[in-house]
Amino acid sequence: MPRVYVAGVGMTKIDRHYDKGILDLAAEAAFRAIDDAGIKPDAVIVTSMLASKLQEQDNLGAYVAAGLGLRYRPALHVEAACGSGGAGVYTGFALIRSGLVDSVLVVGVEKMTDYPTAIVTAGLAQAADAEYELYYGATFTGLNALMMRYYMEKYGVTRDEMSEWPVMMHENALSNPYAQIRRRITREDVARSQVIADPIRLLDSSPIGDGAAAVLLVSEDAAKRLPEKPIVEIAGAGLAVDTVELSNREILDGMPAARKAAEQAYRMAGVEPSKIDVMEIHDAFTINAILLLEELGFAEKGRAAKLVAEGRFHPGDRPTANPSGGLKARGHPVGATGVYQVAEVTMQLRGDFPGVKVDGAEVGLAVNVGGDGSTVSALVLRRA
Amino acid sequence: MPRVYVAGVGMTKIDRHYDKGILDLAAEAAFRAIDDAGIKPDAVIVTSMLASKLQEQDNLGAYVAAGLGLRYRPALHVEAACGSGGAGVYTGFALIRSGLVDSVLVVGVEKMTDYPTAIVTAGLAQAADAEYELYYGATFTGLNALMMRYYMEKYGVTRDEMSEWPVMMHENALSNPYAQIRRRITREDVARSQVIADPIRLLDSSPIGDGAAAVLLVSEDAAKRLPEKPIVEIAGAGLAVDTVELSNREILDGMPAARKAAEQAYRMAGVEPSKIDVMEIHDAFTINAILLLEELGFAEKGRAAKLVAEGRFHPGDRPTANPSGGLKARGHPVGATGVYQVAEVTMQLRGDFPGVKVDGAEVGLAVNVGGDGSTVSALVLRRA
Repeated sequence: MPRVYVAGVGMTKIDRHYDKGILDLAAEAAFRAIDDAGIKPDAVIVTSMLASKLQEQDNLGAYVAAGLGLRYRPALHVEAACGSGGAGVYTGFALIRSGLVDSVLVVGVEKMTDYPTAIVTAGLAQAADAEYELYYGATFTGLNALMMRYYMEKYGVTRDEMSEWPVMMHENALSNPYAQIRRRITREDVARSQVIADPIRLLDSSPIGDGAAAVLLVSEDAAKRLPEKPIVEIAGAGLAVDTVELSNREILDGMPAARKAAEQAYRMAGVEPSKIDVMEIHDAFTINAILLLEELGFAEKGRAAKLVAEGRFHPGDRPTANPSGGLKARGHPVGATGVYQVAEVTMQLRGDFPGVKVDGAEVGLAVNVGGDGSTVSALVLRRA
Repeated sequence: MPRVYVAGVGMTKIDRHYDKGILDLAAEAAFRAIDDAGIKPDAVIVTSMLASKLQEQDNLGAYVAAGLGLRYRPALHVEAACGSGGAGVYTGFALIRSGLVDSVLVVGVEKMTDYPTAIVTAGLAQAADAEYELYYGATFTGLNALMMRYYMEKYGVTRDEMSEWPVMMHENALSNPYAQIRRRITREDVARSQVIADPIRLLDSSPIGDGAAAVLLVSEDAAKRLPEKPIVEIAGAGLAVDTVELSNREILDGMPAARKAAEQAYRMAGVEPSKIDVMEIHDAFTINAILLLEELGFAEKGRAAKLVAEGRFHPGDRPTANPSGGLKARGHPVGATGVYQVAEVTMQLRGDFPGVKVDGAEVGLAVNVGGDGSTVSALVLRRA
């Protein structure tokens, strides 16, 4: 199979971009990735969760690709709720390995501000089960709160231990110019912040924002024709789903789909979790990050929050988790988030990430989640 | 590259399925395809255009795959408006050729009835450009009407010549048990039917309906392990996009993206249009079919409607166009339509399509369109 390289990346700052539509945002990220790579792509994959509902625009593959001037080539829209970005990169990886194209631009875009909060919240809730969860009054935050409550009770984890994750994220985001929130917080701030759905508090929750990120993937052949040879390859890719509705999961104190996706990616790359130097993982809520650390092989069941509180996964430690600031502070423009992660991990491996750096990182991991663990992608990146 | 076979197909009758949700419909088609193939798939691709808007359900890959009992494996949702199904089969073809999985179930599903017509119409319009077309009052039918008017004026095509296509479609659908509309019509019926957006009349337009179709694709290796070796392979696949907005197209009397997609598919399969025995092409409106016949290489510019009126492409002729009855009469559950086409062409090549048969067909073509020509997929199928 042809190897697949990340030849270019681009991001917009995540913000309230009142003056930009989805095509403006996508173009900003996409042209940066195209400039970074030095070629125009053979194909385009667009990832977005909410454009159908908020911008009332479907047919996003054509809409974005032709909008970028890239017509008469394959383009499509991949959706997996908040996990759309990672699923899109997985699909792009497959398109190149299939030999159908030599290069693919994966561009994730989401515009969530400028709309009534109730509409955005209802849109986000579509990541959960409409008939078996939402219809009965569950909110998406409420479902994650069930998981957090259960985990804390079962393993005797304290509020203070859980609070270190968002503190670390805000600290990491301070120097990331693309981050939406750059403000230091304390564990006390988290514990005293507004209750959203008990035990989830405001500072356990990722913000709503607008943004786009793009990565330009190329085959080994195409890489040879580039002005500068890319040095980061996608060494392993995994994607796994579970029931959308929590009620049919095998467990509630974990994310089995994350374990399966990571197993696929680790096996393909031939690496163990201990080889990972840097990772960007999905922390839409604090509980997501804690469960992922365990499922991805970085902590024993019930131990992750304690480890974080003790200083593990902080800058300087290996692996460093979310040097970008994560969904919590870098931001979470839902359908774009997974693409941000791959762009960030690529930059860490290249050594040009403009925030917290993980010096000498050789192997990285990006894990993006759709719903509360129903679609999980895992991508292992490596310096080639 | 590993060859890709269609090992199983399944469809539901297209109808007003008031008693079924999207998961019920998807399951009916999917389990038929799984039974037909004799294996469960490694991965699932779900295609739908309107589920986000009408069923308020995103995360459709996980929703449908886990709903079918197929969790812990890759699944994702591919959207390309009315062209979602073909784009999904293209993606499934790539997933298998990439070596990431050995088998993929592509299931297209759409439930369009049970909702106010205005909501469904607004949803369908999202295939066009929200900011540059819909905002100014254009409807999706209106945009197609512009293309039809321009074509008829430029090439001197009469209403009577255009009317033969829907007549042929209704005739073909009479014996298709999956077809939504089984009723004979005449050219006079078409010409006298209600004006929807002049010159498009009611009987130029595909109906609104609910349905699901599934195809189970396998690699050559997986094919060897099946109870019965599949005899139809996907020999060529193409996908191409153009601007969503008509105003930026290079021409209005054609669909350049269809020509590009077909070129890719013909080249990969090593066939010329003259080798195609049977095809299912996208006739959401009469004008779509007429333009496609020209772009796909079956008629000179401006000649297709005249040829149809003279009896070309009818059963008995080669290629036979839309023996299913096409979108016009088999029906057009938008995000599922492209999967219906692949299932139907597969059955034609196997000789077990339960309607109008194309005896001895060796090579088939399925062409699915999103928007008014903005995303077009072309798949060449061949008896292996």
